Amino acid sequence: MTDADHMAHALRLGARGLGRTWPNPAVGCVIVKAGRVVGRGWTRPGGRPHAEPVALAEAGVAALGATAYVTLEPCAHHGRTPPCAEALAAAGVARVVTAAGDPDPRVAGRGHALLRAAGIAVTEGVLEAEARAANAGFLKRVTLGLPFVTLKLAASVDGRIATASGESRWITGAHARRAVHAMRMRHDAVMVGVGTALADDPDLSVRDLGAAHQPVRIVVDSLLRHSCDSRLGRTARHVPVWLCHGPDAPEAARAGWRAAGALLLECEAGPDGLDPAAVMRRLASEGLTRIFCEGGARLGAALVRAGLCDELVSFTAGKLIGEEGRGAMGPLRLAQLAGAPAFRLASVETVGVDLLARWRPL
Amino acid sequence: MTDADHMAHALRLGARGLGRTWPNPAVGCVIVKAGRVVGRGWTRPGGRPHAEPVALAEAGVAALGATAYVTLEPCAHHGRTPPCAEALAAAGVARVVTAAGDPDPRVAGRGHALLRAAGIAVTEGVLEAEARAANAGFLKRVTLGLPFVTLKLAASVDGRIATASGESRWITGAHARRAVHAMRMRHDAVMVGVGTALADDPDLSVRDLGAAHQPVRIVVDSLLRHSCDSRLGRTARHVPVWLCHGPDAPEAARAGWRAAGALLLECEAGPDGLDPAAVMRRLASEGLTRIFCEGGARLGAALVRAGLCDELVSFTAGKLIGEEGRGAMGPLRLAQLAGAPAFRLASVETVGVDLLARWRPL
Repeated sequence: MTDADHMAHALRLGARGLGRTWPNPAVGCVIVKAGRVVGRGWTRPGGRPHAEPVALAEAGVAALGATAYVTLEPCAHHGRTPPCAEALAAAGVARVVTAAGDPDPRVAGRGHALLRAAGIAVTEGVLEAEARAANAGFLKRVTLGLPFVTLKLAASVDGRIATASGESRWITGAHARRAVHAMRMRHDAVMVGVGTALADDPDLSVRDLGAAHQPVRIVVDSLLRHSCDSRLGRTARHVPVWLCHGPDAPEAARAGWRAAGALLLECEAGPDGLDPAAVMRRLASEGLTRIFCEGGARLGAALVRAGLCDELVSFTAGKLIGEEGRGAMGPLRLAQLAGAPAFRLASVETVGVDLLARWRPL
Repeated sequence: MTDADHMAHALRLGARGLGRTWPNPAVGCVIVKAGRVVGRGWTRPGGRPHAEPVALAEAGVAALGATAYVTLEPCAHHGRTPPCAEALAAAGVARVVTAAGDPDPRVAGRGHALLRAAGIAVTEGVLEAEARAANAGFLKRVTLGLPFVTLKLAASVDGRIATASGESRWITGAHARRAVHAMRMRHDAVMVGVGTALADDPDLSVRDLGAAHQPVRIVVDSLLRHSCDSRLGRTARHVPVWLCHGPDAPEAARAGWRAAGALLLECEAGPDGLDPAAVMRRLASEGLTRIFCEGGARLGAALVRAGLCDELVSFTAGKLIGEEGRGAMGPLRLAQLAGAPAFRLASVETVGVDLLARWRPL
């Protein structure tokens, strides 16, 4: 077993926390002594405890002289708990291997420095690219003040998401819909535009996966047109509902949603409705690191135009709907083809009878 | 080596003829004696000679007592050449293994019967499904009087094939475009609608693949609006150009195209332009077995509506074009989603930077 093997193990553990650790990163930690794994930890829901104290607690005295593999630089600041770098040193760990540095200004190299000052051998950068990808949401929030945004499309082979009359249930099959629920669960929040909210009255929850965790449910709704007597409104006390609205949202609608238990986030308006970058900055400031946007076409296009889309998740169903159908993407206002937002294929697989491709911005 | 192994070899040989053997099937033949391959043949361009005499000629006296693997039932009728079943018997082959029967009324079991009457052991149905798929074009022409139609789509992730201004060069990358040329070569003919012909002035030839063979180039052009002073018109003497037109095509346009060397095929008109089934019946009666339709959206939709599309070949480029762009598929006139033409995913692969999925009608 190499350092990379143990780090891959730690990354798998860290991934368990995705969608539940915000505003913190989903870190994994493995403690190895004489080739045996003596402790395993991952960041717990809500972001505390961190992965390292969980793994150290499992290891107990076996941590003495052991090597700890941590997917992100251990924290160095005193918050609700003592810093993890101190905890590793106190447990007598002889060596710490990390995958990526933590750009959080309260850490930013101080974690590694604290470990070295305690006489611990430190190896940095093992599986760094993988760790950066796994923590892309946290890293983007800390460095750019924006969340990582996954945009889901689910369309026919000819790129349509509904018939002319708006019928859209169901274009993709049951397996794909289940995969969407699993994707929701690995994000901090699920987001739709007001058009989709009004058309579908969605509940945006994770179903059928024995999910203890439900992501925050967000509607981008400049004028608060979505009714608080909707599925989202009626369940807002059980699972968080956040409404991103503009300065012109009527007071009555604000009061109704507030009474329903929703969180109202007033965002700057842009030339057409809310400024998508302002919305995302506001959501990041609330701590969100990973947002799963399920459309509609108009919101998706606004995010793409603003360069806010970090991954396209595209389900294709074996159907043809034709030009009368509604397109998967709203207006992009291209002057020429060379200006089309470009993506590289990151992966492709079949999900039941449908095709699933993931695209990353070039 | 099993019978299936040798038949798979024969199928690979047969595939070499795809696109060049029409109106005949692209058959493969392997002659095996004492476990060694002593003869290999495949139907030559134009459909003659057949695979069996080619393989027998290579085997020579070694054919005596050997086993012949043939992907389609050997012919039994005297045409330009003696029947292959007789040739196999005359060469002293002891056993013949076939994959699929030939439904051509001049054969239809008589090939197998002739072999058995000559004292040859016959095994039928080895890799039958594969052979039926390989010869789908020939089998459809003989049984239904229609060609096998492959419909190509090449679109952005959101299903657009051009910007609002009609810019479409290039949405897919160089590898995908090369793959399209290889696909053209494996079909008897390449087809476009008049809209695409007028917009792109395409030449529809196979380039850059050292191709000795060029498929027939077809424009579905009810009123013969495409100019005979186009790329197709100017090259019609070198590579065949066929124009499917309606009864109302002006005489001057007919005369121009005739003078350019094109073949004019008058087809019945339907409620909107030419009746696509009439067009396909006419092309099959001219001997075509495999047609590669490259659009546009309107012709593709007409073929889909008429149930004439046997395979969808869908290239997806990592771009977004938005709702202003032109859709990959014309009108399908669905009353409801349940009526959408349905397909199953047959294969998916990457071609350069693009995604290629093949869909077959459910």
